[in-house]
Amino acid sequence: MAMPKGPQAFPRDEYLRRLSAVKLEMKRRETDVLMVTTPSNITYLSGYTSKSGYVPQGLIVSLWEDEPTFLTRRMDAPAAIHQMFMDRSRVIGWPETLVGHPELDGFDAIIDFLHEHNFARCRLGLEMKSLAAQTVEKFKSRMSNAKVVDFSNAVTWIRLVKSDLEIAVMKEAAAITDAAMLRAKEVIRPGIRESDAAAEIIATLVRGANGKPGTDLSGFYMCASPRSATCHIPWSEDVFGKGSQINLEFGGKRHGYVSALMRTFSIGKPSDRLRRTHEAEVAGLEAALAAARPGATCGDIAAAFNSMLKKWGFMKESRCGYPIGIDQLEPTASLKEGDATLLQPNMTFHLMLGNWVDEDFGYVISETFRVTNAGAQVFSSFPRELFEL
Amino acid sequence: MAMPKGPQAFPRDEYLRRLSAVKLEMKRRETDVLMVTTPSNITYLSGYTSKSGYVPQGLIVSLWEDEPTFLTRRMDAPAAIHQMFMDRSRVIGWPETLVGHPELDGFDAIIDFLHEHNFARCRLGLEMKSLAAQTVEKFKSRMSNAKVVDFSNAVTWIRLVKSDLEIAVMKEAAAITDAAMLRAKEVIRPGIRESDAAAEIIATLVRGANGKPGTDLSGFYMCASPRSATCHIPWSEDVFGKGSQINLEFGGKRHGYVSALMRTFSIGKPSDRLRRTHEAEVAGLEAALAAARPGATCGDIAAAFNSMLKKWGFMKESRCGYPIGIDQLEPTASLKEGDATLLQPNMTFHLMLGNWVDEDFGYVISETFRVTNAGAQVFSSFPRELFEL
Repeated sequence: MAMPKGPQAFPRDEYLRRLSAVKLEMKRRETDVLMVTTPSNITYLSGYTSKSGYVPQGLIVSLWEDEPTFLTRRMDAPAAIHQMFMDRSRVIGWPETLVGHPELDGFDAIIDFLHEHNFARCRLGLEMKSLAAQTVEKFKSRMSNAKVVDFSNAVTWIRLVKSDLEIAVMKEAAAITDAAMLRAKEVIRPGIRESDAAAEIIATLVRGANGKPGTDLSGFYMCASPRSATCHIPWSEDVFGKGSQINLEFGGKRHGYVSALMRTFSIGKPSDRLRRTHEAEVAGLEAALAAARPGATCGDIAAAFNSMLKKWGFMKESRCGYPIGIDQLEPTASLKEGDATLLQPNMTFHLMLGNWVDEDFGYVISETFRVTNAGAQVFSSFPRELFEL
Repeated sequence: MAMPKGPQAFPRDEYLRRLSAVKLEMKRRETDVLMVTTPSNITYLSGYTSKSGYVPQGLIVSLWEDEPTFLTRRMDAPAAIHQMFMDRSRVIGWPETLVGHPELDGFDAIIDFLHEHNFARCRLGLEMKSLAAQTVEKFKSRMSNAKVVDFSNAVTWIRLVKSDLEIAVMKEAAAITDAAMLRAKEVIRPGIRESDAAAEIIATLVRGANGKPGTDLSGFYMCASPRSATCHIPWSEDVFGKGSQINLEFGGKRHGYVSALMRTFSIGKPSDRLRRTHEAEVAGLEAALAAARPGATCGDIAAAFNSMLKKWGFMKESRCGYPIGIDQLEPTASLKEGDATLLQPNMTFHLMLGNWVDEDFGYVISETFRVTNAGAQVFSSFPRELFEL
């Protein structure tokens, strides 16, 4: 029996609309055929979220065809048939013999495919920034009659403005995030192991909210005293104690889309420094959100935050956030002073105000929001408190 | 207050021993200084497991110094000071201004460091296979007087033979894996959502076993009917039903090290095809383990499995597994016919016998084991059954 199509996260028209935008960019860059290799861009253009990116794979978008073709490891092809919107004939599994092969790999199968389909002399778009040097070399040598065009981040930039359908999925993810943050508030207690609290919070991220389960996990960071100045440690083997500070960052995930949130917790009364930092950062957060309207720039959001923080006598060294969507961080625009990217409705950002000041002091708060004509719309409804447990 | 050193997974001597092996290889390849960028290799040589690999970072190993130097994003430096075995002066945070910068990135800071430390004319090892083409270009242009040596996978090959200390950590991970597989057996029932079962199993992977928590999560795959022919889908939004088949793959994780395990479950009586496949695969698994002794090759293990499977009238297209350690898959030797890698005591493998045959039929079983002079020692004590629930 053939693998059935799974329930699709988005209708076919949504994928065709995304592909049209990519094809317009291909024409602008004088590209005939594009090999998409960044996993989040493959998800965007096909619905595929299975974890086969550890081996070479590529989604081939041609100007002359409605649907792209996906080449992946043979054993991963059934998942692609199940998850992708395209016809099953559009999924091609390359042979298992290429795994662990001394000279060849899956990119050789993709190059064979391009030759067989008369793309040998085409203008070929590659996401060069995320391809290994030797892979680019392989394409240049085995496709020596093709003209290679750098398509790095071009699809990622198209993802910056979301459709209403994507916004709806991100709001489902945000509800999961909120449920997990509430669970954190319940389970973080003195005498509890960090790992036991993490287990409860993560289980909530998997179970989901409002009948919508999480469909995967995203980055999870629980940085507790004496690690409150760190930002990317999942959790430790310690036990929470009186006076522990706990900085949390995580996001629920639906069909690849993440809505991230950061909050700071204190077991017992927070220090004056922590309390004042919190007040300054919340004021900065509100100023930043107020600056987020169509026509303003990403830099304006950062400037509004930084100047409010300065008024309170604080500063933050790192940028104020980044576009968010599939797999959390989109490496395009930046919420950073000087970034001239014009804000448009349905751009989504993680206003990430984590502030790791000294080796023994850090504080986190954030919001995931979209730009609307009426200003910023925040996805979470979790209070902006410094939680005393 | 300065960031304190955290409890170290391994004693200083263990890291110095690993570094000695790397330096020997550097001499063999006529390399003065090596930039290690693969996250699992950084973990191996320093103890660092924090998740900062989304930005440029490098562990600089020089022939003339005992301890390496780590350059990472400024906000991630405190975690490195906390987790790495080296002196705190060996951790250098590059400036936050390089994040989202239009031309520069963290590799420019690393190149500046190499210039400042008189490595401009050295023989420089790079893990080229895992570096983006533009990063290699940057090194070649900004370090034009250095001789670049390809060090791809060289550190990874050194990881192939584990120390007894590493084996002990992998056994701790295996106990967590077993606890989670037992939990799977308890919670997978008809009428239960896949996500709710996944939440319980994953929570067990976090809580750990024998007082040793998981320190992170590894890949988690629950591929249930009608997806039993897929291998890398975390879970779906479906509900288990009568007759569902569930293929599980996951591994507990301790200090980066994973011990992976796969088992197949059936709700109700398994089909004859599934039962016979199970019997053949278990016979093949036992034959493969019996072939795993010092002096034999990786290829011999695969040949033993394949010929036993053939006797039963079956075959498996994909290879039979791979070396396992930090972050599960080590991309070096292969349990594949023809692989001439000689087995040595304390090599560890994931004998991965997942067999995805048709679009509607797949079966999984696996063991993580080490080679000893007395043969294969399996880390899990979970029964090799086809579980009927």
